[in-house]
Amino acid sequence: MRIISADSSTAVLSEKFVPISIVATASVLVVPPYREATAFLAEPIFVDIEKGHDAIVHEAELCRDLLSKTKADVVHLDMSLGSLPIEQLSPIQFTNMNISAKAKRHLLNVLPRLRKIGNEMTQKYGVEVLAIGKESIPVRIAELTSGAHAILYACKKATEEKHTVLLGLPSRCQPRSMERGIYLYSLMPAEHDVRGFAEDSEEILKKVNITEFLNPIARGFRALKINPKEAE
Amino acid sequence: MRIISADSSTAVLSEKFVPISIVATASVLVVPPYREATAFLAEPIFVDIEKGHDAIVHEAELCRDLLSKTKADVVHLDMSLGSLPIEQLSPIQFTNMNISAKAKRHLLNVLPRLRKIGNEMTQKYGVEVLAIGKESIPVRIAELTSGAHAILYACKKATEEKHTVLLGLPSRCQPRSMERGIYLYSLMPAEHDVRGFAEDSEEILKKVNITEFLNPIARGFRALKINPKEAE
Amino acid sequence: MRIISADSSTAVLSEKFVPISIVATASVLVVPPYREATAFLAEPIFVDIEKGHDAIVHEAELCRDLLSKTKADVVHLDMSLGSLPIEQLSPIQFTNMNISAKAKRHLLNVLPRLRKIGNEMTQKYGVEVLAIGKESIPVRIAELTSGAHAILYACKKATEEKHTVLLGLPSRCQPRSMERGIYLYSLMPAEHDVRGFAEDSEEILKKVNITEFLNPIARGFRALKINPKEAE
Repeated sequence: MRIISADSSTAVLSEKFVPISIVATASVLVVPPYREATAFLAEPIFVDIEKGHDAIVHEAELCRDLLSKTKADVVHLDMSLGSLPIEQLSPIQFTNMNISAKAKRHLLNVLPRLRKIGNEMTQKYGVEVLAIGKESIPVRIAELTSGAHAILYACKKATEEKHTVLLGLPSRCQPRSMERGIYLYSLMPAEHDVRGFAEDSEEILKKVNITEFLNPIARGFRALKINPKEAE
Repeated sequence: MRIISADSSTAVLSEKFVPISIVATASVLVVPPYREATAFLAEPIFVDIEKGHDAIVHEAELCRDLLSKTKADVVHLDMSLGSLPIEQLSPIQFTNMNISAKAKRHLLNVLPRLRKIGNEMTQKYGVEVLAIGKESIPVRIAELTSGAHAILYACKKATEEKHTVLLGLPSRCQPRSMERGIYLYSLMPAEHDVRGFAEDSEEILKKVNITEFLNPIARGFRALKINPKEAE
Repeated sequence: MRIISADSSTAVLSEKFVPISIVATASVLVVPPYREATAFLAEPIFVDIEKGHDAIVHEAELCRDLLSKTKADVVHLDMSLGSLPIEQLSPIQFTNMNISAKAKRHLLNVLPRLRKIGNEMTQKYGVEVLAIGKESIPVRIAELTSGAHAILYACKKATEEKHTVLLGLPSRCQPRSMERGIYLYSLMPAEHDVRGFAEDSEEILKKVNITEFLNPIARGFRALKINPKEAE
């Protein structure tokens, strides 16, 4: 199967580790053995954490954009709603699902836009669009791919604004710098070979010092302290 | 303690990763340090996934068969019912347990047969038979041992029927081929030294090509694509 | 941030792996990158498992003792109550929290003493005291640090009393002996670099043989069989 998916991830944190804004969105094409992205689109978003709900709409758009460039069999959205096709989701169904009132309101809010983009993909490319969320490996790869890009975007922000950026990584992962970019490896059990990658074409990693540590108030999460080299 | 346990595991999958049939059952004897089986009985079952409920009865029988060949102190069945002795399980108790109506019906259906086999083991060999399920390391070792054998059984099926078999492995584990057989290692946290093994006495592994990948729609699960060499 | 935390851990087990007594308490100072203790206080407690509830009060006292020796910004107690400051905890709040009647009774019992110690720390040292529990990495480091010390205390007990001690380690961790002491490494996902340490100043480790195995009836837990060398 050729699977397209998208996710937004990685947060700028306050000094007290409170998430302030979400940094990046990426859509990915994943093919067997389903370990990393074969193709992707990534964007810096730096959207306020309070407005993060709407990220799902932009994720669907990035899936559609990637789908216009490469063939796929199915699209996985980061919504954990029983792997139902997005076209089958309806307000009535949400009442039977075990989701909070707040999540329900948000779903009802984004559903019309999501269904529109979903229908577009289904009609134009014949793919099914599933609300599969946390059960999907491609969603995880999208999370790690957007996370790897988020590191580069945050490094750029730190150098441009000449101040330290504290970056909260996605759950259970760890970056590894390479000559030509940065990998973000999953640390989830049984995901040791799952990873995202971002190419450092602007050689931004050379302009910063990065310190990795554990987020002390959120187990399983790591954070990066990014200092521009000039500012030291 | 010498513990005997049994489990059924590993599924033949459709192209879309839907489980079709369960491949193998194994009973195991596990002794300190409780990392792998000291003795075992394994069988191919290839039972329809819909009829998988009754596997627990056959598992109890395989425990009894192994118990007739080797001494043990206790038997662990793969039923997560508070580690209660099987003889103490009763319909009244199920009403106080947090289990679904469907699971309750199934339990009531198999309980008479299970208690009969359990009583036999207790009276003949003086062992206690516990419904311990997911808290038991011997149950996990039985799962990995049946999984390792399931790989060999699926390879045999692929060569005999001359077609590809897609095999869904147990949760969070990974196979490693050796000269004389195949290991199935746990990838669960804190189970890095827990494994199952199956001896490839018929050298069936030489007759197939095996590709490992992640199950894209079930995080934590891996799958094997087994191709007979002649058919390529 | 400089964080002080405390935890009690590790249990003497019966032959059938039933916990009998809790072995040790430790308070720790944890600073970036939040991987191990920079300073600590550890004590053998060997308290009856039934009376383990009150350990939280002693943990708060050990935090206070450590705070009198070193500066910190915040104190993390091993109570998972939404990271609320201890001074804000009240009986009314517990009714809104998803905690059992038994846990509620126990909380009401220890709360006055906890608040007294908490207030003392806040007024004297200006630190906030949070009921953060399982989300805190410093709590985990306190658990591993008390666990490392518990191993030494249990070894001492085994040599002094000339009999075998069966020791149940904290969840998902594994000891590693070094020249000058013993490390206890976390085996939780994404905690591979988190550990506790205890210095073996009395060279007690040379006087025992330690066998590590898995607790067969509690997945994720390991146990140590400690035999005094003379007694063999």
